[in-house]
Amino acid sequence: MEFIKKLNQAVDANSSLLCVGLDPDLEKVPKLVKSLNNPLFEFNKAIIDATANLVCCFKLNSAFYEAEGANGVEQLKLTCDYIRKNTTIPILLDFKRADIGNTNFAYAKFAFSYLQADAITLNPYLGGEALGPYFDYKDKGIIILIKTSNPGSAEFQNLKLNDKALYEIVAEKAAKEWNKNGNVMAMVGATYPKELARVRQIVGDMIILSPGIGAQGGDLKLAVQAGLNGDRGLIINASRSSIYPSSGDDFAVVAGAAAIKLRNEINLYRD
Amino acid sequence: MEFIKKLNQAVDANSSLLCVGLDPDLEKVPKLVKSLNNPLFEFNKAIIDATANLVCCFKLNSAFYEAEGANGVEQLKLTCDYIRKNTTIPILLDFKRADIGNTNFAYAKFAFSYLQADAITLNPYLGGEALGPYFDYKDKGIIILIKTSNPGSAEFQNLKLNDKALYEIVAEKAAKEWNKNGNVMAMVGATYPKELARVRQIVGDMIILSPGIGAQGGDLKLAVQAGLNGDRGLIINASRSSIYPSSGDDFAVVAGAAAIKLRNEINLYRD
Repeated sequence: MEFIKKLNQAVDANSSLLCVGLDPDLEKVPKLVKSLNNPLFEFNKAIIDATANLVCCFKLNSAFYEAEGANGVEQLKLTCDYIRKNTTIPILLDFKRADIGNTNFAYAKFAFSYLQADAITLNPYLGGEALGPYFDYKDKGIIILIKTSNPGSAEFQNLKLNDKALYEIVAEKAAKEWNKNGNVMAMVGATYPKELARVRQIVGDMIILSPGIGAQGGDLKLAVQAGLNGDRGLIINASRSSIYPSSGDDFAVVAGAAAIKLRNEINLYRD
Repeated sequence: MEFIKKLNQAVDANSSLLCVGLDPDLEKVPKLVKSLNNPLFEFNKAIIDATANLVCCFKLNSAFYEAEGANGVEQLKLTCDYIRKNTTIPILLDFKRADIGNTNFAYAKFAFSYLQADAITLNPYLGGEALGPYFDYKDKGIIILIKTSNPGSAEFQNLKLNDKALYEIVAEKAAKEWNKNGNVMAMVGATYPKELARVRQIVGDMIILSPGIGAQGGDLKLAVQAGLNGDRGLIINASRSSIYPSSGDDFAVVAGAAAIKLRNEINLYRD
């Protein structure tokens, strides 16, 4: 099923705009889990089971799997397979790739054939021509980094050209030139509600992924109000605060409780 | 040993500024190789043996390994191990990553602990603050995408902000702010000799990696003359034209001959 449909079904079924980021870190998982054969996967499985009826999306940042080499990538695949078989929640591979066209075909094979992800994140620096191979995957969500959540993202993204910031120009391209298949989306950090509101103006009813609340300190209320399109169109991601609220063996139960609280708080600002 | 030393030793030992790109593609490797257990690695091994005394660097684009999933990543590691054990040629992991700081630590673990690469490529869109964790690896080459080789790279990279193109601003930041450890380098496509000359002006004696001759059609003479710093400081990469000059079982011998020809041609323009 195409990503947007799958996403909206989960938004409705779980009354949720919350995306849990499955970014497992061997240094942070409980000892009990660390002693298992595939600790990243086992950790994820527990979090998935505890939150699958509370979220609209699972986001997996490939960096945390690559850090453990080939075995980590194997556990990334095990996690995607598990989500697909046991839930109806869409899988967002947050890999922020971009290369020349020829090479992007290889990355697309990793994302869409090997992992069978429903959506991916991409870096715009190489331009829309290079990203062409991704746009052609009509059923997939192609999410462009517009304004990133990190403290130093203004360095280039907020540089001005004739009164327009680079991030605004990227947003315009994504919305007006790259979105011929209706599958292009935007990523804007929740740490920048002003820019989030501006991107919402530019991209119309495109879906926006917004990471940065929780560990990164973004203001949830401001972000939700700035990013919504009606009562949806916004994916609020929390990774570290979602999966590490407890470092004990009760981590999954505590993560489930944290997800309920966060989902409900988002819904408060959604109405 | 640090990347710059290792690179310059190979430049001298092999009289070469040529970098061979090990970007194996299952669709393109000869049938005989495809039938083996680790076809990407076996293909690479033959190319490495045939060219190790002709190059200054091996560049591995991670996309072509990720396309084959965990097993592909395993073959990427086997290739890096093989280069390290059997040659003194530095390993450049071309993975064009960039994420927020916390996540960049995980990518750095993949590149420098798991693969033990000597150098990496990075995308500048998130800014220097996000890339900080990489800059701290003083012995590694940290290569920033400045002006990429693809046909559409002007879309954002050549936008003018106060009379300066974005790629020029990125080059200035890389050279003047990010290079406190003397390990930051630039990547500029050989397909854009004018921009390559401009970046050389901006970055002084920084090393420049220049891909885009061969399959992408960059003019070798113009690129070498625009990018040199004295008789070196430039890494000329060829991937598809280096490793697929023959699709037959003689591929390694033909690739060796192609590398000799290309190395010598570069040296012609180097004097």
